Amino acid sequence: MSREELKRRDRVSIGEFIFYRLHELGIRHILGVPGDFNLQLLDHIYKVPGLQWVGACNELNAAYAADGYARTVGIGAFVTTFGVGELSAINGVAGAYSEQIPIIHIVGTTSRMMQKAHVMIHHTLGENWDHTTYQRMSEPVRSASAFLTDETTAAAEIDRVLETAVKTRLPVYLFVPVDVSDIIIDASPLVKLLNVEVHNIGREADEDRVVLEIIELIEKATNPGIIVDMLVQRHGLVEDTKSLISLIDAPVYVTPLSKSFIDESDVNFAGLYCGVMSSSPEVRACAEGHDFMLHLGPFPTSSNTGGFSNNIPTEKSVKLHPGYCSIGNKSWESLHFRPVVEKLVLHFSQHPCQRKAKSSLPLPKTINNLEIDQSNDPLDHARFWARMNMYLQPGDCVIAEVGTAQFGSLEFKLPNEVQYFSQFYFGSIGFTVPALLGALLARKSLGLSGRAILLIGDGSLQLTVQEIGTIIREGFTPTIIVVNNAGYTIERFIHGPEQQYNDISTLWDHQKILSFFGAPKSRSYTARTYAELSKVLLNEDFQKSDCIQLLEVFFEKMDLPRKLLSLGELAREREAR
Amino acid sequence: MSREELKRRDRVSIGEFIFYRLHELGIRHILGVPGDFNLQLLDHIYKVPGLQWVGACNELNAAYAADGYARTVGIGAFVTTFGVGELSAINGVAGAYSEQIPIIHIVGTTSRMMQKAHVMIHHTLGENWDHTTYQRMSEPVRSASAFLTDETTAAAEIDRVLETAVKTRLPVYLFVPVDVSDIIIDASPLVKLLNVEVHNIGREADEDRVVLEIIELIEKATNPGIIVDMLVQRHGLVEDTKSLISLIDAPVYVTPLSKSFIDESDVNFAGLYCGVMSSSPEVRACAEGHDFMLHLGPFPTSSNTGGFSNNIPTEKSVKLHPGYCSIGNKSWESLHFRPVVEKLVLHFSQHPCQRKAKSSLPLPKTINNLEIDQSNDPLDHARFWARMNMYLQPGDCVIAEVGTAQFGSLEFKLPNEVQYFSQFYFGSIGFTVPALLGALLARKSLGLSGRAILLIGDGSLQLTVQEIGTIIREGFTPTIIVVNNAGYTIERFIHGPEQQYNDISTLWDHQKILSFFGAPKSRSYTARTYAELSKVLLNEDFQKSDCIQLLEVFFEKMDLPRKLLSLGELAREREAR
Repeated sequence: MSREELKRRDRVSIGEFIFYRLHELGIRHILGVPGDFNLQLLDHIYKVPGLQWVGACNELNAAYAADGYARTVGIGAFVTTFGVGELSAINGVAGAYSEQIPIIHIVGTTSRMMQKAHVMIHHTLGENWDHTTYQRMSEPVRSASAFLTDETTAAAEIDRVLETAVKTRLPVYLFVPVDVSDIIIDASPLVKLLNVEVHNIGREADEDRVVLEIIELIEKATNPGIIVDMLVQRHGLVEDTKSLISLIDAPVYVTPLSKSFIDESDVNFAGLYCGVMSSSPEVRACAEGHDFMLHLGPFPTSSNTGGFSNNIPTEKSVKLHPGYCSIGNKSWESLHFRPVVEKLVLHFSQHPCQRKAKSSLPLPKTINNLEIDQSNDPLDHARFWARMNMYLQPGDCVIAEVGTAQFGSLEFKLPNEVQYFSQFYFGSIGFTVPALLGALLARKSLGLSGRAILLIGDGSLQLTVQEIGTIIREGFTPTIIVVNNAGYTIERFIHGPEQQYNDISTLWDHQKILSFFGAPKSRSYTARTYAELSKVLLNEDFQKSDCIQLLEVFFEKMDLPRKLLSLGELAREREAR
Repeated sequence: MSREELKRRDRVSIGEFIFYRLHELGIRHILGVPGDFNLQLLDHIYKVPGLQWVGACNELNAAYAADGYARTVGIGAFVTTFGVGELSAINGVAGAYSEQIPIIHIVGTTSRMMQKAHVMIHHTLGENWDHTTYQRMSEPVRSASAFLTDETTAAAEIDRVLETAVKTRLPVYLFVPVDVSDIIIDASPLVKLLNVEVHNIGREADEDRVVLEIIELIEKATNPGIIVDMLVQRHGLVEDTKSLISLIDAPVYVTPLSKSFIDESDVNFAGLYCGVMSSSPEVRACAEGHDFMLHLGPFPTSSNTGGFSNNIPTEKSVKLHPGYCSIGNKSWESLHFRPVVEKLVLHFSQHPCQRKAKSSLPLPKTINNLEIDQSNDPLDHARFWARMNMYLQPGDCVIAEVGTAQFGSLEFKLPNEVQYFSQFYFGSIGFTVPALLGALLARKSLGLSGRAILLIGDGSLQLTVQEIGTIIREGFTPTIIVVNNAGYTIERFIHGPEQQYNDISTLWDHQKILSFFGAPKSRSYTARTYAELSKVLLNEDFQKSDCIQLLEVFFEKMDLPRKLLSLGELAREREAR
């Protein structure tokens, strides 16, 4: 139904109301797992044109998939059932909360009558038990929630919760009793779009003050730099930031959690900055040598700062963040960075930057000119990632799982327009298989045609492997690179290199995965040497990726990517101190 | 180390202390998933002779497996890591809480220093975030917990939590900071065994009053009956209950959640009583016709009472429960049933029951005399369960997954000494594959040699399929019966029979599961007709179950077991009222 048709409608069910709003936010696929307390709700998905139900194999996977969806279109949604479903998903929601991904978790609950009578129905926890207990459990992993028990306030409650999700970029919950989704309410609120604008109400003077000071500092700087960090993308400021970079004309650094948000072929692109894990010592030195650093959307987690080895002096830093803006040691708390960034762009568009000095860029790495390695040397992390890098094409989607794949893929020099993500902060192993499903659905709805490439270790794969079945059912054709090192290598690196607890079942036959899950057409390969790897990567069919394909690459159990080794050195240095 | 050797030891690490206590409680396998905040803790497992680490594919599965373990030996334990691990497992713990299974969830957390400084390390939820937040989330699904931050109280805290687990038969949590497990403490508390005895302190008079009244009622009854319900087994009263049944010599009924706790060939065994879902209308009538009913360990969930269609008048009922004892309308709150049951057994052992009248039993079903069905009729729920029943042998372990397998398997007349369970109350789909792993480990530690048979639908299988890989890695040889009805049939029955949301991927090739997970030897079969089914079930190798084997049985999408149809009728009747 178009907005025009919707305007002519007087009445709508609460279920439809929810799903119309999700469609309005750009959601085209509702993920989840059916359960007898959400089935009535799910019926309403089919009444909203352009909306589709995509069942996942389990609820944790549905949450991860909604997260991958949201990383791609900006927001995602999934439905679970009371207790068993919502609790199974809670770690996926926590991950989204952690990395600030807005996902809407809709839970079909017991009926209002059952809630009132504390009925000992399935999925409850005992006699005379309060059915809202589960709702309390998820409180720390959401920024808003509504329990839709009253049809007279349902529309306003839904809108409040959805608007909060967009503004905070954090997960939210809607709890819908099984007897509520069919209730018919006034449709008129739907005519007005959700209000998701962000303002610093009553603080225009603060905004102007901050903007003015930043302009002065930039004009005065002899060697300014810019760090584009994770929250820039989370708050939809990537395009503004690109404009600002070009207007200020200064070297720009990304972090592990913002990698791919700025094209790496941009004339100002300087590399990855995260202390000891930076692109190179030269990049690190360059970043730490600026006399002014504009840090946009900072997200100072251990993994995003090379184990807190970042070293940009506060007095040289300006930090613009959704929760504060700071210049040196002065901070304006609760001043949202969006209006500030917008005003900076506006200013420099109208008054071009007068600064004469030009910051120098670190020398770019030139891995694209590498010769193709055809040796019979066994694969190793020292050379593998550069070789894989040559396989990447503009427009690809690259997802890296926690572990060696994550640290190895940080070495990629990404072609333009590549979507890249990895859960660098929350670090929940198994996240990426379902996240790939979500990203594929989202990319389909956006009409993105690039290839999708998942990089995942054999250990992580075991947590969520079944979602490959859903990817196949939905007809997607990603490439899955399985890093086979016989267990949890990143943990062997941390502690207990020879301990049995870091082993997994090595009996799995990865070559059979795609046929087990019933891919109508698929290709599966192994590679143990660079010659074998090149044979696969140079195969034209493999490059086209026109059917789902899997490449299993074998590594020594204790072989590690460079960036993990740097972290190890850092830890040893600190212990020695 | 033996207890004698232990006595000679002065000092022990906190990690060893925990694992020695778990061993003392009968645990021989620690399940879980390693993570960098629990690795130091896991090292200590290897120092306790007779204890073994068994890694599961993911944390939810580890929790389910610990639950299956506890259903078999009485208690189970598993280890996860801070945040990502503990939250992934939370639904499995909730299931154990719901069905009163004591599992010990040990979480390796960030260090005390990191906790104090609110470090933004991986798995946390933001800047300056309280690391104990996750601990609050699991509060409703445990009966005790300890956060081991102080080595001077650690031993006492561990003991308090473990004793509570045993006494309450509910899950508990131990949170162990990564820097704590290696700390050396005084070993002497280990010399004293944990105190897990249950007493009604100061209420001996109440116990005696209840016992006296029950004795009078039993002696006076002309037609007494006994219901053995779930909590009898949970509180370790099965043997006492069997004695009591034989001493009182009255018909005994089980419920869905207590099926298998009483041998079905017992002379007093009357059948399954749960209202409309009882073994037969005759069994139901018999149960409801007694002039006195001793209801031991009642657990009145919807599923355990045929959707609350049980109908034993309160004035004829005595209920003995861990939280109360009641006679008709009189109730003694907080009077634990254990001492009462023990005193009843003691009384009737010393003063044999004088009652002359003998209760009549309903006619037993005689499915064991059925002829083997060799027809080419397609499999259907009306006949399948009786046919499967003939395959069962004394000593088997039978686990039934939520869905049609669960309701169908209620029709089994179980041979003696069969272990049977299904998650009838919590009803979390996917539970049984990991629970099978746990049960197999536990049965191994108990030296039980019977075959293990898992009954599971294709929908539920998709949630936790990877744990078949662990079962294979551990060398177990269960039989997995996959009920293939192309989706969530039990939900089609409840709502939306033709809706797409009740579909799953039907592309999975179940015949390839066992080879994908790398079983060194395996057998896989399909059956669509009774002739095909009989061919497999009569196969001697299949009966021996000397390697892992899978039998996929095909059903019509909407075909349902009888007991589900009864529930459907009940729902329609209630709606019509």
